[in-house]
Order: sequence, then structure tokens, then C-alpha cells
Amino acid sequence: MQKIGLIPLALPFLLAATGAPAAPPSLTEVPAGRAAPESGVAALREAALKDDIAMDIVEGLTTEVGPRPAATAQEAKAREWAVAKLKSLGFSNVHIEPYSMPAWVRGEETASLISPFPQKLAITALGNSGATGKKGLQAEVVYFPTIADLQAVPDGSLKGKIAFVSHAMKPTQDGSSYGEYGTARFAGPGIAARKGAAAIVIKSIGTDHHRVPHTGVTDFPKGVTPIPAAALSVPDAEQLERVFSRGQPVTLSLLLTPRFNGTQQSGNVIAEVPGSDPSAGIIMVTGHLDSWDLGTGAIDDASGVAIITAAAKRVMDAGTPRRTIRVMLAGAEEVGGFGGDAYYEAHKNELHVLTSESDFGADRIWRVDFKFPAEAKPVSDRIAAALAPLGIGAGKQPAGGGADNEKFVKAGIGTIDLQQDGTRYFDLHHTADDTIDKIDPEQLRQNVAAWTTMLTIAANARENLKEK
Amino acid sequence: MQKIGLIPLALPFLLAATGAPAAPPSLTEVPAGRAAPESGVAALREAALKDDIAMDIVEGLTTEVGPRPAATAQEAKAREWAVAKLKSLGFSNVHIEPYSMPAWVRGEETASLISPFPQKLAITALGNSGATGKKGLQAEVVYFPTIADLQAVPDGSLKGKIAFVSHAMKPTQDGSSYGEYGTARFAGPGIAARKGAAAIVIKSIGTDHHRVPHTGVTDFPKGVTPIPAAALSVPDAEQLERVFSRGQPVTLSLLLTPRFNGTQQSGNVIAEVPGSDPSAGIIMVTGHLDSWDLGTGAIDDASGVAIITAAAKRVMDAGTPRRTIRVMLAGAEEVGGFGGDAYYEAHKNELHVLTSESDFGADRIWRVDFKFPAEAKPVSDRIAAALAPLGIGAGKQPAGGGADNEKFVKAGIGTIDLQQDGTRYFDLHHTADDTIDKIDPEQLRQNVAAWTTMLTIAANARENLKEK
Repeated sequence: MQKIGLIPLALPFLLAATGAPAAPPSLTEVPAGRAAPESGVAALREAALKDDIAMDIVEGLTTEVGPRPAATAQEAKAREWAVAKLKSLGFSNVHIEPYSMPAWVRGEETASLISPFPQKLAITALGNSGATGKKGLQAEVVYFPTIADLQAVPDGSLKGKIAFVSHAMKPTQDGSSYGEYGTARFAGPGIAARKGAAAIVIKSIGTDHHRVPHTGVTDFPKGVTPIPAAALSVPDAEQLERVFSRGQPVTLSLLLTPRFNGTQQSGNVIAEVPGSDPSAGIIMVTGHLDSWDLGTGAIDDASGVAIITAAAKRVMDAGTPRRTIRVMLAGAEEVGGFGGDAYYEAHKNELHVLTSESDFGADRIWRVDFKFPAEAKPVSDRIAAALAPLGIGAGKQPAGGGADNEKFVKAGIGTIDLQQDGTRYFDLHHTADDTIDKIDPEQLRQNVAAWTTMLTIAANARENLKEK
Repeated sequence: MQKIGLIPLALPFLLAATGAPAAPPSLTEVPAGRAAPESGVAALREAALKDDIAMDIVEGLTTEVGPRPAATAQEAKAREWAVAKLKSLGFSNVHIEPYSMPAWVRGEETASLISPFPQKLAITALGNSGATGKKGLQAEVVYFPTIADLQAVPDGSLKGKIAFVSHAMKPTQDGSSYGEYGTARFAGPGIAARKGAAAIVIKSIGTDHHRVPHTGVTDFPKGVTPIPAAALSVPDAEQLERVFSRGQPVTLSLLLTPRFNGTQQSGNVIAEVPGSDPSAGIIMVTGHLDSWDLGTGAIDDASGVAIITAAAKRVMDAGTPRRTIRVMLAGAEEVGGFGGDAYYEAHKNELHVLTSESDFGADRIWRVDFKFPAEAKPVSDRIAAALAPLGIGAGKQPAGGGADNEKFVKAGIGTIDLQQDGTRYFDLHHTADDTIDKIDPEQLRQNVAAWTTMLTIAANARENLKEK
């Protein structure tokens, strides 16, 4: 929206590109005779702290489309919505890239403790779960405090039983507890099936205490027939633990009727800010359009879609960048990264020089990680310096990307991770509670400011961003 | 559990009872030749800050019984559970006092926005709601930002429409916002029915932002046929407001199949700490055993049941008090105070000198209010002084009691309100989220300490506690 000229910014980049890597410019030291290298960036960054584009996108997508599960009519509606929005914002080359995939759809889902203390429990099926049949399933429950306890019992030993797997996940700023405790969801159902279990219920992979269970995809290994697999809300799982503490046999009734709805269409939405120098390569930024069906996918990932779109729009409005910025709004991330894979297959031979993903909510960015060629070190230094006023420190480990750019990361393409604060993320992740009211507008704006800063520098840098 | 003799406590009470009201004793000034009047109380109070009886009761009732809606088998199970618990704690005269009442039971409940933006909404029927029939109801929605806006339209003008009533309730420490904004629930359905509406949905009378709608009873005036009446969760109601902001016609599909299940049995559970002086009258303390069906009724009102029981147990274990303390665990509070009314009718001719209710969660007590005869002023002064170390100030308005002692309050019986902090109460009230994990054990113990303090002084006071 604001038009801020890039001329004072471009000059030092040109000078720096002439030979040996330039010393990283500082925000305070300005060499005599040169314009302050980051002065244009600073103005864009400060303007982005007043951004209203991102919240408008989140509001529109979550209100006018709402839940948008992969390979459904709602996800198709999200693509149409996004195309219209991106065109109205002035992006170029806005289009849908469709692909086909198997569609898993939720059915009925209820659970009741039958004995010793009859009461209803809040439950939701995991993505790819098998079904109980319409009459449901009633069986004795075997309690495993951790996934390791489930792994320890012999194959076939749980015949006719429902496995209940708990865990002790706590919030972490970097989200690292998800990998550790998430195993109960990612792999637990497959393990329980191998042990002969009739079904599995897990404590939701979440850190909240609300009666809103967390769904999410699970993977059954090849050759293992899917069993009904579901997550109890954290309070319900704790209730079941208390029930088990009485030492009496525990029986659960479970009704889960999800199904695979054949092969359906999904797709990615692409938009571009065309760069002035096609030989400088493409910067691909991504978030995902699909969401789980329980909430409206505000933090997962309407906010990512909104942040990258708002930032790209701000860079576009500031003048033509050197590199093309390609906004890739992925489909079907939640159920296995189908959109990211389809994009990679279709575009891997184009000159991508940098990718970055926003898919960890809407809370503030606290750290930036890079995976860059050595010769691009001045660029990462300039980016880190320009992010510092936003309270963002530079990390020491290499950027790892996310589900929708991981194949580029593995292929050695430069990557930047603008790490969001994940302390609250797993309170809401994959639940009915993932709604717009959970977004703090100020933190969302800080994200837009960080992305605007990063993209401005990366898209205009004269340095090479790719190993030769 | 601790045995703390009451002799040093009783002596000044005896002296104080001889004629003119004594000056309120202070915790610091001890008249020469007398034991410190509150020294026994102070020790009981401090011991109660380490209480584990109350949490044990909440844990047992919410785990082993769980939800206990009025006039259901679950509520009957709660009575049996309470009788066993009260007997095991050593109370006297433990028994059930049954009564009959109409039983309203929840059925299926779903809601979907049909147009302009199809999506599911989280909804729950209000107590006494009518039903849509098994095929549900689909109709245009008319939005009323406040209950006053609904009241303003002509009778009959909403024929065939669904009324949607919102509000702007915010948390208050004293819970006073419930009365103001709660009108949308208490009276809204009756008003909507008069206006001709086919159904009504309201924004939950709650202050949280979770997808857990708040139920609660509504009253249809005599002669008004009940219509389907339900509450959307706060995020869902806000979503509907955003949808209305687009200016397009809004259609909702509603399925609500609650019904009245005829006349069923409910009952109160009574237990006593017998006093040494029957002429000194009864102190009746009350909380309610029933709960809404959506959660396990941990804060509403297992905690009240637990607090008064734990405090009475502590007073009992300290020695026989002068007055009988009667613990009255009411049935059917949620649906209209049937238990409190039945108790009043059965016992109104007994000499009650003081009643007090705990039914506002488990957070700390911050204020004490009294409604006492003038001659008992020294007693209220001593209670206020002994509560001060717990961070409890004395209020200036008279105590008003609650649903289960209100007829005694109206009849002029002395009343003490130990006011709990209600700031979080309406985040959880009448929702699936009312579970034990929401209770802060330290604040629950402060409640027990305050009640133990109040009961010790009131049950042993030599002053008359009733107008003559």
C-alpha cells in the first residue's frame, strides 16, 4: 500500500556485488559517501508494524470459507477465494495448480466410558483412522503411560483390546516437544495395530486443558490394516488416567465412522511478484490453504498464508524487486504435504534460490535461522541485523524448512526459517479452538514486519543465494 | 484430622455472652488474664491451608460419578457417593431426603451455517429448551446485538425466523456481569417465542474464547410454548457476527432433540456435626451435588460441596461445637433450585440461625459479607478479623445468599457470603470445560481455611445469631 522507493537500498547492493563479500553493513555505521544500506528496509519494516492486510486475509478466509480440509469442496472454495484475493491485491500470474489425492473424511465420533464409571468422553478421529462400523466397538482398555510402554508389549498381545497411550507433553518455545511426544499420534496407531489392538485412543498431542481434542494425521505402515484411531482431549485423557488409578477393569465404547472418499482434486495457488532479473532466481514463500475440519484454521495456517501474502504485497508495492517472489499457497499440507510435493515435482527445475515457510501460528518471531551458501553470508548478516529491532535474534543451527518446502531444503536450496513463538501453539493446534480470536493482532503484525524485512533484503540482494 | 481443643476459644465467648455486646476482639490485643480469643481459630485456619480433604472430594465425585444432571441416575449415584463419603468422614445423621421433579434431558444438538458460508457451529441446548424434531429446522436468522434489541421488535414479527441474540459480557470479580448479560439466556427464549420466532440461539453467557458452549436453564413464561433454544460458543457467536457484517441473508440449520422425561426423583443429602446446645440453633451450609451434563461439574459445584464438607469436618475434629452444623448437599440446583426449595419446605420450622452457601467455583475468597442481627455484630467482627490474614476484606453490602439458601435469607435468617473470585468463573461455567484440572489447589485450600474459620467462630459464638 505504501510506496517506498528502493533506490537508496539498491545502491550499496550494487557496490557490494562487485567482488569480494562486503563486510556486513550495520544499522548504525554508515560509510562516508554511501546511503544507509538498510534505510529503505527500516521504513518498510516500521510501516509493516501497522499492517492490516494480514488480519484482513485471516478474517476473510476463516469467515467466508471456514474449515477447509484437504481434497474437499471447502478446500476448492479456499483456492477460489485465494485467487480472487491475490488478484485484487495486484499479484501477477495468479493461478491454481491442481493435483489428485486420496480424500479421508471424518464421520461420527463419540466415546463413552462404560465401566467402572459411565460418562461421555470428548474424542476426535485421527486423519487416516479406520472405522469402528456404525454399531461402534466396546472393549477393555489397556493403559500405556508412554508410547515406549506400548512398543514394549509383544506383537499380537492386545487382541480385542483398546490401547490407551498417554504422554507428558509440555509447551516449548521452539515446538520441539511436538516431535518427541507426537510419536504417540504419528506412529502409535500403526504400532497398536501390530500389537493386535482393536483400536487406539491417545491423549491429544496438545498442551491445553480444554475439552477440544486434537486431530492430526497418523500413518499406518504398508501392510498394516488401519484400526480406529482417535485422540481424547487432554482433560478426558487425564480423567481416564484417574479412572485407571482405581485399579478396576476399564471398558470403553467407541464410535468412529471416517472413510476414504476416493481420489479427489486438491491444488496449490500460485501468485508472483515478478522480479527485474530472471537470472537471479525465484524466492518461493509458502504457507498452506488447507486446514483441519474441526476449527477454521486461523493459526494453522490462515495466518501463514496471510503473513507471506501481506509481506510480498508490501515488497511489491515498494517497487520491482530484483528476484521474483513466488507465493505458493499449498493444498493438503495437513494430511501429508501433497501440495508441497506436487509443487516440487512441477517446479524443481526452475531456478529457486531461496524458500521460506510460515506454518507455526501467528505469535511473534523470536529467532531467525539460515541455510545459505557461504558467499551469501553478508545477506544473512544484513537480514539478521535488520530483524534485530523486532526482537528477533539469530540462531546458530541451520534452517530446516517445513512440510511445504522440505524437498527444496533437502535439494540444497537456500532456506530461511523465521521461527515463531510456539509456546501457545499446541494449545490450539488441530482443534476446534483454532479460530481467529486466538490471534494477537500485534504479534501478527510483527510477523509481517519480519517477513517484509527478510524479503526486501533477499529479493534485492546482489549476492548469489545458491551454491554453484 | 488435627485435634485442636476449643477451650481457649470458648472462654471469651462465654464472657462475651453475659450481657452487652463485647467489643470486637482483636487478633493482636489480648486482654490481661484472658486467652487470645482467636488463637484456636488461627491454628485451625493455618492447618486448613494444608487441607487435602476438599481436593479428595472433588476428585472422587468428578471421577467416580462425573456429570450428574438433576433427576437422573447419575445424580442418584452422586447421592449414594456423598452418603458413603460423609459417613466415612464421621458425620452424624447422614441421609438422603428425596423429592420428585420434572426431568429435562439433552438430546442431539448440532448447528450449521447453511448460507452464505457453509460451516458447522458449536452449540448446546439450554435447559428447558423445546425440540426441533428429528429432521431439524432450517430458517433465516435475525441478528440482535443485545437482548434489548430483541425486546424492541413487535410481538409476532419473527414468525418462522431464528433469533440470534448476542451480548458483550466481560469478566468481573464479583460475577455481577452474569445478572446483566445473563438475561439473554434467562429470558431471551421466552421473549423470542412471544415475538413468534421458530427458535433462538444466543451467544453463550460466558467470558472465554473456546468452542465449548455454555448451557444453563431458561424459563418460558406460563402460557408460552417452549421453542428450541440454544447457545453458540463465544467464538461461534462471534463468527456469526462476522458473517452478518457481510450484509447477506443468513440461514442456519438447527437440530435439537431435548425432551422432558416425566417426573423423576431427585434429593438432598444431609449430614451433621451435632452441637452441644440444641437451643443455640442450626448453622446450615450448602453446596449442590447436581451438575450440568456437559462437564464433570468440578467448579460447579463439586468444589462447593468439597469446601463446606472439608471445613465442617475440620470443625468437627476440633471438638463438639456449640451449634449444630448441618451440611446440606442440594440436588437439582441447576434447573431451578428444587433441592433448596425442598429443604426449606421440610425444615423451615427448625431453628436455623445462620446459612451460608458455596457455589461460585474454587478460586480464592476475597470478601466476606454479613446479614446478621445487630446484637451479633461482635461475631461478624471476629469473623472478619480472623479472615483478614487470608486476604479477605469485609464488604459493606448485606449478604444475599444463593439459590439453595435464598428462602432462609428472605425469611430473615442470618447469612454469610464468603465471596469467591469470579474472574475466571464464567470462562468455565456450565461448559464441558468444567473439569478438575481447572481447580487451583492452593485457592481451594484458602476456601477451606476461610470456611473453617467462619464456622469455628459462628458455631461456638455465645451471642444470639438470630433476630428475636
